[in-house]
Amino acid sequence: MDIFATLTRPTLLLDEARCRRNIQRMAEKAQRSGVRFRPHFKTHQSATIGEWFRPHDTTAITVSSVGMAQYFAAHGWNDITIAFPVNLREIREIDALAHTIHLGLLAESNEAIRFLAGHLSAPVDVWLKADVGAQRTGIPVDDHATFITLAHEAAKSPMLRLRGVLTHAGHTYHAASPDAVRQIYRDGVSKLSALKTAMQRAGFPQIELSWGDTPTCSLVEDLSGLDEIRPGNFVHYDAMQLQLGVCREDDLAAAVACPVVAVHPERNQAVLYGGAIHLSKDSFPVKGVPWYGLLALPGKEKWGRLIPGAYVTSLSQEHGVVTLPAKHLSKIKVGDLLVVIPAHACLAVDLSAEYVTLTGEHIPIMA
Amino acid sequence: MDIFATLTRPTLLLDEARCRRNIQRMAEKAQRSGVRFRPHFKTHQSATIGEWFRPHDTTAITVSSVGMAQYFAAHGWNDITIAFPVNLREIREIDALAHTIHLGLLAESNEAIRFLAGHLSAPVDVWLKADVGAQRTGIPVDDHATFITLAHEAAKSPMLRLRGVLTHAGHTYHAASPDAVRQIYRDGVSKLSALKTAMQRAGFPQIELSWGDTPTCSLVEDLSGLDEIRPGNFVHYDAMQLQLGVCREDDLAAAVACPVVAVHPERNQAVLYGGAIHLSKDSFPVKGVPWYGLLALPGKEKWGRLIPGAYVTSLSQEHGVVTLPAKHLSKIKVGDLLVVIPAHACLAVDLSAEYVTLTGEHIPIMA
Repeated sequence: MDIFATLTRPTLLLDEARCRRNIQRMAEKAQRSGVRFRPHFKTHQSATIGEWFRPHDTTAITVSSVGMAQYFAAHGWNDITIAFPVNLREIREIDALAHTIHLGLLAESNEAIRFLAGHLSAPVDVWLKADVGAQRTGIPVDDHATFITLAHEAAKSPMLRLRGVLTHAGHTYHAASPDAVRQIYRDGVSKLSALKTAMQRAGFPQIELSWGDTPTCSLVEDLSGLDEIRPGNFVHYDAMQLQLGVCREDDLAAAVACPVVAVHPERNQAVLYGGAIHLSKDSFPVKGVPWYGLLALPGKEKWGRLIPGAYVTSLSQEHGVVTLPAKHLSKIKVGDLLVVIPAHACLAVDLSAEYVTLTGEHIPIMA
Repeated sequence: MDIFATLTRPTLLLDEARCRRNIQRMAEKAQRSGVRFRPHFKTHQSATIGEWFRPHDTTAITVSSVGMAQYFAAHGWNDITIAFPVNLREIREIDALAHTIHLGLLAESNEAIRFLAGHLSAPVDVWLKADVGAQRTGIPVDDHATFITLAHEAAKSPMLRLRGVLTHAGHTYHAASPDAVRQIYRDGVSKLSALKTAMQRAGFPQIELSWGDTPTCSLVEDLSGLDEIRPGNFVHYDAMQLQLGVCREDDLAAAVACPVVAVHPERNQAVLYGGAIHLSKDSFPVKGVPWYGLLALPGKEKWGRLIPGAYVTSLSQEHGVVTLPAKHLSKIKVGDLLVVIPAHACLAVDLSAEYVTLTGEHIPIMA
């Protein structure tokens, strides 16, 4: 079938073969490295895609919200870490989950640990969040004393099982090169290992190290310095990851097909029905200018090669303005489709109710 | 009731009194100016809020997609302009709508007009899209010859009723001052009037002028140079409009309440459960730096005054990092709520399934 002929509105497309290959490759790398594979399901947010991990013996997953934990628990996953600083206002839902699955939570303050100890009626795993340089959340990885204080606080409660230290090296997304990503990994693992040793000496022998982020997990070949990896974006990759050298064009598994609604040859631009509510306003910089996506044409049974020099240059609510070299723009007319590789696949997925595969299957996304 | 005590997750709040006052003020200005009020419903996307326009004799509305036209048509609106270049791939849905309501479409090419003429089986209004400087879509307003050519093309089909020229002065969102907005209006209306005269002389006496955008419609007192206005954002306003001087703080009608999940006094920051999937990644520049929202504390029955010098400084999927002066940050702890005035209300609304009013009512948003 010609899937593209059937599309009338902005549509999130999934190349299932690429997605399954991305999953297999990362699962095999985790196995080779001897680390637990706890993939982050916030990227695909789909029970169906979740099933594609099972043949690779994946039993533990990561999510980013209590709602997402509820969704995947309802779809048969019973070892789930919510890799987000615990939201104390959802304690009732958290406690209910703790009664039904093996639940992991993140803490980075005595206040949060004491609150959990005082309110939970079933045990949970506790991961202390370390900041290895992303400066978003977490305790600075070198601040061993604080980690040890929190570990002692957690040890007071039979409801809290201290599992280890968890980090997300989000600054790899802004690294200048693949080598810079590898350097962030080496620095981070070195500091985490020192922390682990310090905590072991302080009476916590069981400390594990958990590391997230797709750039690292894709670019570092041997991850054996860790106990667990939690990449998420690798199932689809996106324009940002391609730009960073983290994936190849043939790994890009998600795209948004958008109708062309205006063509402006005088400024080498076309306008798409496909805007911030379909792609998100996330961007990646090319020589300091933010771009919102890369472009391809519909092909036979899949989208074609990326058009060199073609970018999504601005977005408003429903409009996407794209700039293309004249020789490509001249072949595009109102009513055609263009395929956008979004800057950030996780956000484009979150904005859609479903995927449509290249063979026309509809795969629902968590509401 | 204390609405804030009931909130556990990021929640879109609506100050109904402010929203109704914003609607009344704009409706009265349109009436004073003697122009048709065709408010853009893409901002609120809610059948319930739509009803709040009816006491002001609003019968004509604007939407930005065929799906939104279907939604509001199903809720009793029967004079709807889809203010987006017509998406030819949805011709079947468009034709069905044309049979049931008075439908307005936008065109800016002979190809689109000929396609409509060849495929519609019920009449529609056609508005020619003019570009008065936003450089997104539309024919340059000074290119009278192209408008006249398109008008002749439309005149060939009994299915196409040429209504006039429509523009969206989107560049007012980036204007340096309220006076710069007023200048964009004066220039635009002057050029549109010249175009109208040229088209009248060419045999199209009935040409109307339709103008969108909230900055203009809020800041210009007398809009009588136009026939129709289509502002949308004014129902809620947002941080971008406040920054631009388009509204006052007391006009801000939509906000997102977010739980605090981490506090980092060492860098004057807190981290919210409230990220790009709740607020969107739209931003407004302050001295060249992008901010994603302004901040207030929950108050008694409504949110409090904006905290001076407090901003949402970065966003990822679920995380919002906020920077506050130390004296304010010192009072905030994990588990508290902060109220974010989003950079761009239209996108924050689009990301939510419902509003919660300050009295605890739930108002659904179009899916």
